[in-house]
Amino acid sequence: MKENIVNLGLFGFGTIGAGVVRLLDANADVIEEKTGSKLALKKIVDIDTETDRGVELPEGVLSADAADIIDNDDIGIVIELIGGAGVAREIVANALQKGKHVVTANKELIAKHGPELVRLAGQNGVRILFEASVGGGIPVLTPLLGCLRGNRINRVLGIVNGTTNYILTQMEATGADFDVILKEAQELGYAEADPTNDIEGFDAAYKAVILASAAFGKKVDVSSIMREGITKVGMADMEYARELGYTIKLLAVLEDNGAAVDVRVHPCLLPCSHPLASINGVLNAVYLEGDPIGPLMFVGQGAGPSATSSAVIGDVLELLTSGTSAAGGTAWNIFADSELAPVTSVSNAFYMRLTVSDMPGVLADVGGCLGRLDVSLASVVQKKTDGKSAELVMLTHSVNEGNMAKALEQLKDLKCVETISTALRVFDS
Amino acid sequence: MKENIVNLGLFGFGTIGAGVVRLLDANADVIEEKTGSKLALKKIVDIDTETDRGVELPEGVLSADAADIIDNDDIGIVIELIGGAGVAREIVANALQKGKHVVTANKELIAKHGPELVRLAGQNGVRILFEASVGGGIPVLTPLLGCLRGNRINRVLGIVNGTTNYILTQMEATGADFDVILKEAQELGYAEADPTNDIEGFDAAYKAVILASAAFGKKVDVSSIMREGITKVGMADMEYARELGYTIKLLAVLEDNGAAVDVRVHPCLLPCSHPLASINGVLNAVYLEGDPIGPLMFVGQGAGPSATSSAVIGDVLELLTSGTSAAGGTAWNIFADSELAPVTSVSNAFYMRLTVSDMPGVLADVGGCLGRLDVSLASVVQKKTDGKSAELVMLTHSVNEGNMAKALEQLKDLKCVETISTALRVFDS
Repeated sequence: MKENIVNLGLFGFGTIGAGVVRLLDANADVIEEKTGSKLALKKIVDIDTETDRGVELPEGVLSADAADIIDNDDIGIVIELIGGAGVAREIVANALQKGKHVVTANKELIAKHGPELVRLAGQNGVRILFEASVGGGIPVLTPLLGCLRGNRINRVLGIVNGTTNYILTQMEATGADFDVILKEAQELGYAEADPTNDIEGFDAAYKAVILASAAFGKKVDVSSIMREGITKVGMADMEYARELGYTIKLLAVLEDNGAAVDVRVHPCLLPCSHPLASINGVLNAVYLEGDPIGPLMFVGQGAGPSATSSAVIGDVLELLTSGTSAAGGTAWNIFADSELAPVTSVSNAFYMRLTVSDMPGVLADVGGCLGRLDVSLASVVQKKTDGKSAELVMLTHSVNEGNMAKALEQLKDLKCVETISTALRVFDS
Repeated sequence: MKENIVNLGLFGFGTIGAGVVRLLDANADVIEEKTGSKLALKKIVDIDTETDRGVELPEGVLSADAADIIDNDDIGIVIELIGGAGVAREIVANALQKGKHVVTANKELIAKHGPELVRLAGQNGVRILFEASVGGGIPVLTPLLGCLRGNRINRVLGIVNGTTNYILTQMEATGADFDVILKEAQELGYAEADPTNDIEGFDAAYKAVILASAAFGKKVDVSSIMREGITKVGMADMEYARELGYTIKLLAVLEDNGAAVDVRVHPCLLPCSHPLASINGVLNAVYLEGDPIGPLMFVGQGAGPSATSSAVIGDVLELLTSGTSAAGGTAWNIFADSELAPVTSVSNAFYMRLTVSDMPGVLADVGGCLGRLDVSLASVVQKKTDGKSAELVMLTHSVNEGNMAKALEQLKDLKCVETISTALRVFDS
């Protein structure tokens, strides 16, 4: 048998890049046995060529010059692990234009520029694959675009950000406040020094948009989707949620009603009986409902060098075995323009926690305000906090988002309402 | 755009066959949108052409003559849903020899004759795909042979039989005995009139062998693996297991230590904290541990026309888009001869429930017998049943299967041991 050596070029030698090097080294035998090919990391390009990444490289592999990969005709497959939508975008576009296939884990790049890059790949007779961009190592995009293609996908719910899932899990388990757990997560390396990208839901929003393309074949503008982070979730909400039979998760929620798609990222009260409710810590999970397949769930590690390198190399091997022409294998030309359902056309159940004056007539005032906007209540709990104030926790039935927004405005103006501490969506079906 | 019509022939028009007809009808638009192809069910062959299956077929599609498909040059893809390893084997072999691709949901056929049929497909330049044979609609084989190929798979645990999972779940939930729940499952259509294939673990064993091929690339003889059904699991065991922090599941257990593979099907005490412990009812799940990906779990409906037709059509679409040559797409030539680890070389923790005479010295006798065979105990619970007898429930540490078999033999001969009610394996790491 002729030895089949496949040369790879890698951009970005951070922790994920080092993970890819480690995988290629440790599993060379498995890969050759399963595919008949040897993967050779010909060049790694990174601006930092000094730092020790804990993996050994042959002399001359590491370089700071992008041309060493882009202009190298021996390299047919480029792995992009730089991250962000700046330099990475330029490098990926250059590689595609040079007729090189690209494998990337970069969710921001794909969420923002996926359609243009997929088009560019097609024009140059190559492919761009990005399984690692959603759910880390968990096979999500490939099954959606492969085995599950016979289905109509109606809904996808995803816990797609490990940092926020860790924070929420730890808040619930320990009773400690958000700030305390965030600091702990930073010390453990689960959260970055600037945690904005995770805790404000940007990372999950990128993934939601990529999921929408794979599940529904629809292109959604990431800057126009509803996005709410977890900073407003308090310990009190955790406790009330638990009392009411719910847990709080940051969810990517995607629904396709045929005419429009609804894509959102927000914290959500999820019934404890829901399969996603037990996905704890840094784990990720994607739950979907398809017709005819019914409910389906994938669970695993959503980030980190081990899981991510598994997905990256999976994509590289997909390029080897499904043919390297743009036509071969599963079609990743998945982006059709689509209408995003206006938020005000969507309905949701809501959880609210208010501080109100502890005096007669409060419930009538609050109830009257809600009733006038068709917000009907499923349950109300009132707890005294001190002599003057009381805490009011309410669950609504499903209500139009537009009406709910108005109701929250008007509640604020009621004399008896001191503060609206939290308003969170509730998953109710 | 040229209209691309793909003609299919279907063998077996039972409930699954009718599900395939329903899917093709209901999701024709989705399939054409995603693949650019129309799937046309040209011929259905079944010995029964009379029974109403609740789906409408055009005149002339249903026939009782296999030649209508096998000798029809317009049909390039054959779906086999007859089941069993008799007629189905002959029909699949004929179709492959005629240069037709085959998609099948038939676990018995693949477990018993997979290697020979995969070889035959290769010789004829076609492929045989069987994603639906394990886990129903859950993508399991395709990810193992696709996205996850860069990993070394160390262990697979599967709840791969919905009937037995339903029975065990209901026993635990209701406290009713095996026979009662089995009868209920039969009335609900979850168990067959002759339930042997499910409750004795044959169905799970077929799936275990197919999983071994996809996970490890190893061929295992289904008749030589350890197989134990759920008929000996009593309500008392359910209750003791729960007290000890376990639930009881029928598991397919696969491990690869490099030198040999260990493939088994048996009921197992699983810690309640294990991800598989909460997979209830007719759901199926496959949990695996790979390097570097870590733990991964897939959950969904493991049987029935909806889930199965999803996987069958997924395979058909895979044939369309990954090229129809045997070389294209993921390699399904996955069967290498392999050594099955002898049972006596494997270690497991055990749970035992014995009825013993309620008199002094019993524990010493039982403990002495176990100790001489290196069976060390993790915990012992003794409960009085009446004046004369007591129930002794023991959990062992991990012990060699050979020694445990000897220990059970010798315990039986002890004067103080009246009966050994149950001995079950315990998952302990």
